[in-house]
Amino acid sequence: MKPQIHKVGIILKKQDSRVQSILRDIVPWLRARELEVFLDQGSAEQCPPAVCVAQPEELVREVDVVTVFGGDGTLLYAARLVGSSGVPILGINLGSLGFLTEVKLDDMHEAFERLLAGNYQLENRMLLKVEVVRGGNVSAQYLALNDAVINKGALARIIELEVSVNSQPVLYTRADGLIISTPTGSTAYSLAAGGPILHPTLDAFIIAPICPHTLTNRPVVIPEKDTVLVCLRRGADVMLTVDGQVGMSLEPQDCLRVRRAESMLTLVLPFGHNFFKLLREKLRWG
Amino acid sequence: MKPQIHKVGIILKKQDSRVQSILRDIVPWLRARELEVFLDQGSAEQCPPAVCVAQPEELVREVDVVTVFGGDGTLLYAARLVGSSGVPILGINLGSLGFLTEVKLDDMHEAFERLLAGNYQLENRMLLKVEVVRGGNVSAQYLALNDAVINKGALARIIELEVSVNSQPVLYTRADGLIISTPTGSTAYSLAAGGPILHPTLDAFIIAPICPHTLTNRPVVIPEKDTVLVCLRRGADVMLTVDGQVGMSLEPQDCLRVRRAESMLTLVLPFGHNFFKLLREKLRWG
Amino acid sequence: MKPQIHKVGIILKKQDSRVQSILRDIVPWLRARELEVFLDQGSAEQCPPAVCVAQPEELVREVDVVTVFGGDGTLLYAARLVGSSGVPILGINLGSLGFLTEVKLDDMHEAFERLLAGNYQLENRMLLKVEVVRGGNVSAQYLALNDAVINKGALARIIELEVSVNSQPVLYTRADGLIISTPTGSTAYSLAAGGPILHPTLDAFIIAPICPHTLTNRPVVIPEKDTVLVCLRRGADVMLTVDGQVGMSLEPQDCLRVRRAESMLTLVLPFGHNFFKLLREKLRWG
Amino acid sequence: MKPQIHKVGIILKKQDSRVQSILRDIVPWLRARELEVFLDQGSAEQCPPAVCVAQPEELVREVDVVTVFGGDGTLLYAARLVGSSGVPILGINLGSLGFLTEVKLDDMHEAFERLLAGNYQLENRMLLKVEVVRGGNVSAQYLALNDAVINKGALARIIELEVSVNSQPVLYTRADGLIISTPTGSTAYSLAAGGPILHPTLDAFIIAPICPHTLTNRPVVIPEKDTVLVCLRRGADVMLTVDGQVGMSLEPQDCLRVRRAESMLTLVLPFGHNFFKLLREKLRWG
Repeated sequence: MKPQIHKVGIILKKQDSRVQSILRDIVPWLRARELEVFLDQGSAEQCPPAVCVAQPEELVREVDVVTVFGGDGTLLYAARLVGSSGVPILGINLGSLGFLTEVKLDDMHEAFERLLAGNYQLENRMLLKVEVVRGGNVSAQYLALNDAVINKGALARIIELEVSVNSQPVLYTRADGLIISTPTGSTAYSLAAGGPILHPTLDAFIIAPICPHTLTNRPVVIPEKDTVLVCLRRGADVMLTVDGQVGMSLEPQDCLRVRRAESMLTLVLPFGHNFFKLLREKLRWG
Repeated sequence: MKPQIHKVGIILKKQDSRVQSILRDIVPWLRARELEVFLDQGSAEQCPPAVCVAQPEELVREVDVVTVFGGDGTLLYAARLVGSSGVPILGINLGSLGFLTEVKLDDMHEAFERLLAGNYQLENRMLLKVEVVRGGNVSAQYLALNDAVINKGALARIIELEVSVNSQPVLYTRADGLIISTPTGSTAYSLAAGGPILHPTLDAFIIAPICPHTLTNRPVVIPEKDTVLVCLRRGADVMLTVDGQVGMSLEPQDCLRVRRAESMLTLVLPFGHNFFKLLREKLRWG
Repeated sequence: MKPQIHKVGIILKKQDSRVQSILRDIVPWLRARELEVFLDQGSAEQCPPAVCVAQPEELVREVDVVTVFGGDGTLLYAARLVGSSGVPILGINLGSLGFLTEVKLDDMHEAFERLLAGNYQLENRMLLKVEVVRGGNVSAQYLALNDAVINKGALARIIELEVSVNSQPVLYTRADGLIISTPTGSTAYSLAAGGPILHPTLDAFIIAPICPHTLTNRPVVIPEKDTVLVCLRRGADVMLTVDGQVGMSLEPQDCLRVRRAESMLTLVLPFGHNFFKLLREKLRWG
Repeated sequence: MKPQIHKVGIILKKQDSRVQSILRDIVPWLRARELEVFLDQGSAEQCPPAVCVAQPEELVREVDVVTVFGGDGTLLYAARLVGSSGVPILGINLGSLGFLTEVKLDDMHEAFERLLAGNYQLENRMLLKVEVVRGGNVSAQYLALNDAVINKGALARIIELEVSVNSQPVLYTRADGLIISTPTGSTAYSLAAGGPILHPTLDAFIIAPICPHTLTNRPVVIPEKDTVLVCLRRGADVMLTVDGQVGMSLEPQDCLRVRRAESMLTLVLPFGHNFFKLLREKLRWG
């Protein structure tokens, strides 16, 4: 169900010079349409008048929609703030076309007009619930829109990982690391590691080793209802990274438990959105 | 729902020397348990007494279960006979472990005992409905358990294919060919062409180009509800092959329409079946 | 050593509409510089006055340089005519940039001016000597500038090939086929099959299986002094193709013996030629 | 030319329980044949009588041959000690067959007998000279038998590298890192990153990006006479690792200059050595 839009949150790419002129343009435009505009505190310096400044965590609780100006990285940051709250996100790219930030800056006003007129579509994207299990207890927990990545440090030699699905052993791999990716993440890091492209609405996720020593360790796609457990059997200086942004050090015998999160992330689809069109443009398929 | 087993059909690998001794063993064994045994006519020479011989097409209509002795190729042949009739298939391998023929010859009696005792599980596998569209009409139609493959002839140079999903253009590719594979087929030809491994119960299928000239043309996994259309835009001496066994010549502008078939194929799972275990053994994952 | 240019041979892409206007332009231009122009008989229809028409095989014996107008396919055809005669080839592309036809049509006059002034460089490219060994005898022989390819027919199932280098067994592979490629051919079919890019002056060649069933069968690069023997151990409807253009049917137990040819092919390098620049443009490396 | 063997150096895998019994066996065996035995100081605890203990760096200057007991990692360590001194190395594996440690522990005495009788072959392997260029100066220098690897840290996001060969720009890549590998190293990390297998005697080396975001960034093989320059254009927490063992942090704008070293490393080949046989066994090529 589409929400009535009264309050618009804005999240901006950090350290981007175009941000100020965008705010000077879009804030009065939104205010003229009697919308409340919320800006996260990190962008407060560039803050125009008549805008509510909020901590990022509060912002997403206040608004009816979050607008992201930036690249896919900024949208992933916003997705983490939004979490399971259900607030939809609209991505507007500041540079090149992104898989998550499809609206061009030039089409910004048109996108907002459609949004206010209710003339838009929503698409739910699967989130992963990522838990670090240490000594039998869950010591940390994350939501991922793209992927959870276990990766060796730069100086570290190979690491060894034991992977099981629903308690069935799948793989014991010696590799640089391992990616567990949603369909949304299939066009990000997983693709660079040799993973397949999954349609974003597919009920499945990918287990893809990174530079495995055993050449037959190919990416595996499993149903969304499955639970993956990845345990670090050997290796020091190993990190977990979620959506390429947050993470923590893993210790030997730490395990990662990954399954579908109960909530999904809601994207506002730009007009004329089509995944395959996006794919053709991004990958330059003729 | 599991059928009561009264009539057992047997389909044998062609030209395999072990076939006669298998029949001398298993037919009396089954008869002693008051089962009717049906053998396809092609194997009639080696036919022991008290066995009903039938045309393959009739056989699958008469029996409660089809037992295949052979490799995955023989099981694919049997699957085509069974088609949408719903008769379950049990695969017993005559040589090396197959993805579809998991029971070892030595475990044959145990497998039949479990079958007769109702002590077994069934698994439904997606089938693809493959139609050749020529001049606007469906000129041929196939069911595929593994895959539908468009391939250039050995002397032919590259071919050009236009791929769309649900009428949305996806890809215009210059390649040796293209594979559309079920999850079951993901460990067959598609894997050799660089495709991912899909869990057999996944509701999805793979579009994988074969040796594409555009290096970014990576395999794509789409939801089972989608319809794929592949049109031959350039190239002579081009063939469609279904499950590596049957097929036909394609003419320029011919299209292939592929979607999920309404019926599924039912496999009798051997005791202790586990897809990942099978995968580990076949791909030698430590 | 650079030859003095008195006689210019011209080989044209078949069935290309621009050919006639090119001849109307370049033939008088060359004649005005007191050069003799030779045209192959296949292009005789479009033949302007004062041009010597010759069978292609004779043409390459008469001239000091062969100019090819077309794509890489036309240049491969010309290379086969030139064979071991040592006559250098200049490639001018009629469409998109080719790895072998680097000069743009618009830069044609400049390229000829440099050629006549001796202001150019030559580069020798390795050729492969490809022999079909049947029943102990060499039954056919080819020169390859790009590659020799063994490929199964479209309907054929997998084939089995036994590969040895200098009589040492290397590989027994079940695959769609196998490519033996020169450095020049490394950016053609071999690349599509997963082979590496070799600098054209490297003294080496590639053995690359096509869609091998054993996932560890990776491309191997061996020194130019080695002799490769590939024997067809199983499979019907199998073809040998050389440079994607000529070939023959292979019979079971036929072998292919491939080694470096004694002669090399000589390319006239366009001004400012740089392999890596070409690579960046063709593969769209930023 | 083969050296007369009077002094044998022994380098042992660290922390391996079999080491002591090996020394108790081989040291008296060698002493009985009037050979001087040198042991590196790190193994001094387990030191049997009548053995000269030396710093590793001194050891390699004293001896006529270095024997390595361990895996490929231990041999790479020994190779770094030997450097450009020309002392040949014999590798004896303590566990599974290695590409550099081919002799089985059970065949140790036979291998030494052949060595003393002069009944062996030597093979020279290319070394890479790896220089870190910082602010115009060479700030560090390494010899590599396998590879030089630039790698991002586990938490780091993608890095950007600019690659040129002989001052010609080749590639600007966004990736996890980049490998420059010798033919010897082609079966190590480079293979896991998608690189080709190079015959160890090939005069060439590999440039292979690690998980590049641009899918067309494929491995490139270049002649041994070329000089590669790789500059870090973007990214923090980036490391250089040589042979998977030593390394240093790289700073933005640091460059790596890699070319063939003047000296080569000399391996004592075991009896019946054959690269392709080794390859078949390690990669399980049927």
